[in-house]
Amino acid sequence: MNAQSAVRVAVVGATGYAGAELVRLLARHPRASLTAVTSERDAGRVLGQVHRTLSFVGLTLEAADVDAVAKAADIAFVALPHGTSTGFVSGLLERGLRVVDLGADFRFSDRALYEQWYGPHAAPELLGEAVYGLTEHARAAVSGARLVANPGCYPTGALMALAPLADAVRGVVIVDSKSGTSGAGRKAATGQLFAEVTENIRPYAVWEHRHQPEIEFHVGAAGARDVHVLFAPHLLPVARGLLTACYFEAEAGLDVSRRFSEAYGGEPFVRLLGEDGVPEPRNVRGTNLTEIGWRRDARTGRVVVMTAIDNLGKGAAGQAVQNFNCMTGIEETCGLDDLVAALP
Amino acid sequence: MNAQSAVRVAVVGATGYAGAELVRLLARHPRASLTAVTSERDAGRVLGQVHRTLSFVGLTLEAADVDAVAKAADIAFVALPHGTSTGFVSGLLERGLRVVDLGADFRFSDRALYEQWYGPHAAPELLGEAVYGLTEHARAAVSGARLVANPGCYPTGALMALAPLADAVRGVVIVDSKSGTSGAGRKAATGQLFAEVTENIRPYAVWEHRHQPEIEFHVGAAGARDVHVLFAPHLLPVARGLLTACYFEAEAGLDVSRRFSEAYGGEPFVRLLGEDGVPEPRNVRGTNLTEIGWRRDARTGRVVVMTAIDNLGKGAAGQAVQNFNCMTGIEETCGLDDLVAALP
Amino acid sequence: MNAQSAVRVAVVGATGYAGAELVRLLARHPRASLTAVTSERDAGRVLGQVHRTLSFVGLTLEAADVDAVAKAADIAFVALPHGTSTGFVSGLLERGLRVVDLGADFRFSDRALYEQWYGPHAAPELLGEAVYGLTEHARAAVSGARLVANPGCYPTGALMALAPLADAVRGVVIVDSKSGTSGAGRKAATGQLFAEVTENIRPYAVWEHRHQPEIEFHVGAAGARDVHVLFAPHLLPVARGLLTACYFEAEAGLDVSRRFSEAYGGEPFVRLLGEDGVPEPRNVRGTNLTEIGWRRDARTGRVVVMTAIDNLGKGAAGQAVQNFNCMTGIEETCGLDDLVAALP
Amino acid sequence: MNAQSAVRVAVVGATGYAGAELVRLLARHPRASLTAVTSERDAGRVLGQVHRTLSFVGLTLEAADVDAVAKAADIAFVALPHGTSTGFVSGLLERGLRVVDLGADFRFSDRALYEQWYGPHAAPELLGEAVYGLTEHARAAVSGARLVANPGCYPTGALMALAPLADAVRGVVIVDSKSGTSGAGRKAATGQLFAEVTENIRPYAVWEHRHQPEIEFHVGAAGARDVHVLFAPHLLPVARGLLTACYFEAEAGLDVSRRFSEAYGGEPFVRLLGEDGVPEPRNVRGTNLTEIGWRRDARTGRVVVMTAIDNLGKGAAGQAVQNFNCMTGIEETCGLDDLVAALP
Repeated sequence: MNAQSAVRVAVVGATGYAGAELVRLLARHPRASLTAVTSERDAGRVLGQVHRTLSFVGLTLEAADVDAVAKAADIAFVALPHGTSTGFVSGLLERGLRVVDLGADFRFSDRALYEQWYGPHAAPELLGEAVYGLTEHARAAVSGARLVANPGCYPTGALMALAPLADAVRGVVIVDSKSGTSGAGRKAATGQLFAEVTENIRPYAVWEHRHQPEIEFHVGAAGARDVHVLFAPHLLPVARGLLTACYFEAEAGLDVSRRFSEAYGGEPFVRLLGEDGVPEPRNVRGTNLTEIGWRRDARTGRVVVMTAIDNLGKGAAGQAVQNFNCMTGIEETCGLDDLVAALP
Repeated sequence: MNAQSAVRVAVVGATGYAGAELVRLLARHPRASLTAVTSERDAGRVLGQVHRTLSFVGLTLEAADVDAVAKAADIAFVALPHGTSTGFVSGLLERGLRVVDLGADFRFSDRALYEQWYGPHAAPELLGEAVYGLTEHARAAVSGARLVANPGCYPTGALMALAPLADAVRGVVIVDSKSGTSGAGRKAATGQLFAEVTENIRPYAVWEHRHQPEIEFHVGAAGARDVHVLFAPHLLPVARGLLTACYFEAEAGLDVSRRFSEAYGGEPFVRLLGEDGVPEPRNVRGTNLTEIGWRRDARTGRVVVMTAIDNLGKGAAGQAVQNFNCMTGIEETCGLDDLVAALP
Repeated sequence: MNAQSAVRVAVVGATGYAGAELVRLLARHPRASLTAVTSERDAGRVLGQVHRTLSFVGLTLEAADVDAVAKAADIAFVALPHGTSTGFVSGLLERGLRVVDLGADFRFSDRALYEQWYGPHAAPELLGEAVYGLTEHARAAVSGARLVANPGCYPTGALMALAPLADAVRGVVIVDSKSGTSGAGRKAATGQLFAEVTENIRPYAVWEHRHQPEIEFHVGAAGARDVHVLFAPHLLPVARGLLTACYFEAEAGLDVSRRFSEAYGGEPFVRLLGEDGVPEPRNVRGTNLTEIGWRRDARTGRVVVMTAIDNLGKGAAGQAVQNFNCMTGIEETCGLDDLVAALP
Repeated sequence: MNAQSAVRVAVVGATGYAGAELVRLLARHPRASLTAVTSERDAGRVLGQVHRTLSFVGLTLEAADVDAVAKAADIAFVALPHGTSTGFVSGLLERGLRVVDLGADFRFSDRALYEQWYGPHAAPELLGEAVYGLTEHARAAVSGARLVANPGCYPTGALMALAPLADAVRGVVIVDSKSGTSGAGRKAATGQLFAEVTENIRPYAVWEHRHQPEIEFHVGAAGARDVHVLFAPHLLPVARGLLTACYFEAEAGLDVSRRFSEAYGGEPFVRLLGEDGVPEPRNVRGTNLTEIGWRRDARTGRVVVMTAIDNLGKGAAGQAVQNFNCMTGIEETCGLDDLVAALP
């Protein structure tokens, strides 16, 4: 394949944090050609005027238009606020594009479950077709998919820990997650002001967050039986980064280390830290990596698995590009393997 | 004086950062009785529901109403956004109250200068009466004032440095200030999001900020002749704190150390650090203190004076309470002298 | 009681973070007279030269000397690094002083358990006498104690959550704690450098931390039977503050809200937030408060209780002063009730 | 040139912040082959054990040995603490290597000036040969140099502003710089603890810092006559990033915008922001870029130029690699132009 054969891609919703990170990754992706970027708020402005770090891209933001995007690109990354993407995604699919959707709209094949948490779905006929793109666990399906639902950041952090062990998990999984603020998006909100976030950690939506059913559904899909997930997210005074601790009981014979070696031993984007290692968000910052550490307590048999991801990397744009690579038959690490977290 | 003789005070605009700090200070002030707190956004809610740390106060927020405030209080602290306070202040004065206004509306006795920077003034007849409340330099006038214009945070930081030296300053004063984000208030704004502020420092309104004429006007009032101020503010990844560096040429004979000793030697809220000392915002955090350090360069004769204040303390609520004490004949340190910056 | 009757107190180890906070609290305590402060590193220096914010205290640091401290004070607060305080505490007791020890040396009445985690104990005869000073749960004992072992910050955060429910807890308690860096003290260490801590969260000593047996022992003392504690601490990019989440199974009939109301309903230093409330460290910063929120999951019966304290407040110096008040018959809130967390 | 022709490079002092950033850049540099990394403290450990993010490199740290480095590499990057590198650099040069030294030892051709600030120089015969590697202003000399003295971070920030205007500067230049903590290195120090740095800004070594003579000397070398530099550095609660403001008087006819266009118009690593633009460290984070904005005040004729760099990028490792590219005839942007600051 040569330069001419680059895949034409568009980013719909390019000025939010996930969208901007997609642009950062795709603009320097050796096999992608970024042809269109959209923004409702900033339509008409050059992207580099909105985000100076992206001035090298040289594109002008347009209001999102299905026909325009369909004309410009072969694959579209849709990073719109929840609920606003359904129709747009349908329209793109109808026009023959393939889509990686970073919103929540297509993450459940179970319509009732979706609607219980999110309200009526505008395109339920697509729910069965969408592939949940936790790449390491869905490669085959992703590679052939028209529509990939990119997992949420919290579910990615939890499922990278739980999926390889799912059938051995028993009862209740406590998921205690700590996220950087960029996970909440770039929308102005009093609670996200610097002065409200610094020197604090804020639990929110404890056991009521919409990512709880997403985790529970997909840990079930990975083989867990009758497992309940209790999910407590926390807001950190950190821009990027997501640390997740999963606490649970497991069947007696489970060899956690062996499971992770088997599941992720050859994975380019997984860094296994073993029983003594503790993952840290700063070590994956700006990358598509997942760090994983674990421990089983001899007295109680309880297991903890901790993961660290960049909520905008593996938790959003990084995984979206990884899925894109799978979908198109490009080397899965292409455009992602030269990202190295800076120290400090 | 006994408990019955406490002065009844109201805070108009009690849920912003300056307003909430006023409440924090006044609610525990031994000689003030906080009787009313207002908020447009949160009218009807108990203050402690908006700011849990203030739940001990036990007051309910009301929409600002001149008659209600006038009935409840003898002195009102007005902490409204710029331009919205003029009419309110006039109304309170008409009803016999005395007012400490934390906005910019009454900080210039020069109407033309005010209007050049802020637009038409709604109550120009009050400009001559208002006292600019840089307390250490205006005690006598403050004590008898009906209307005290509380200085802006940046001007306070600069004028505490410049006022004692004003007649000896020559030519141009460079003021390079670094402020915590709470100086910008509690309004939701994309540029104030944690993820936009952390791990950065952002200059803004360089040589165009409205506090430039305020500094220049009052350094002139303090005795400077033909002095120009060039003012460059910066936004720090810090919630509270304001560091100001003033660079200037001075007349040859100026003895900076002696001037500061004479000006501030006995001041309870000024910590003179001398020629080797450097002020730090964390050392005044939560207090009404000003730290001051200085140095004169032997080669060039140039002087630098640096000050650190808490932008919500001496830069806003602290100084307002100091002025209140002056206005009422209460000991000037009352309610302020037991505030000690915590380490860390 | 009048001013003359103030209790003479000394702070042994006054320049670390806990020691400096003790000084901050005691120097303005209306019924304590701070007469001596010690520091090995900075002996001979005026305290205000080491910590400028404490310059109002006016004491000179001395090397710790049992006789000198015994002569100067009636009650000593000992804030020395672990293992270095045992002999010093013994010496003070022998000379007739009463002691609040902020180290770990006297927190277990079970010598074997202590020595399993910390090594040989130098004064085991005192282990039975020392009172574990979680004040709300040990008032009577504290009031008569010669030696109070001030609880660790993590155990305080966990036990304020667990003690009122201890008899109803079943099986395993997961304690996931997130602490500010001041909990690790003021000693230079690469891992505590700003550049290593910012924009990160770092789990450490997961399920191996020395505060695990302290929590487990005292939750047992509070009535739990056969309860295992699994403890995972995390380092936050925050100077002060400690958030603790305790997850556990409880007996079916447990009414969590009622238990907390009964246990803490009238407590001046506990802010009960109920089932919808989430505690936040910033709301207790600089104070002796504990915020508590909780929730029981209907599907699984699992309970989460979250607490927020200031690790230097209720987690160290604040509780030490609270214990001091109890020991001396001074009003328990004296010197602590006017501390109000600033916003922001 | 093909893969075989990659230049063999070593990083001496690879575990400090500048050294680790060099490794990050060189390990992925398409034309460099990183063959040796040294560390005194961590000799014998695999680099990835010290800095997990660099585990992809696969090298083992060795104690610095001139012969070993000379055998392994053609060009060495020396990132040792000041004063320790002189002998090492001499030894490498004697063995035929070319060196980029990131320390201060070779930044002055004026021995007396060096020794006034740093003490006796151990290899004064090299001072005349060393090239001061502010790349944009020294390309020809750098390309042929055996020894490049990489400029300090503060001087880089100031000189990128001043060099193009040097001959038009009059009198005194005020340089007010604000730096991230990584500029102070990775050595444990109480003053660099997170709890000492957060929520603060700390001026230090005001008008006494060793980078003052470096700036003054090289602004003179760039054409300034009788210009005095007064330099005030500040420590920010930021890991990476350096903002510099230069204030000065200039000759009447100076056209600042034109000067910058001419000097930097085609430069790949300079982003000119013009008269309305303000540079921000976050926009250059992780890159070799310099952002520059400026303004001339009509009333006073005074000029301000502000620059933002990453103190570990253009301020250290980035510029070192840029110099390396120049020295070897490799495209100057090689290995650097795909670095894009992430948002946020």
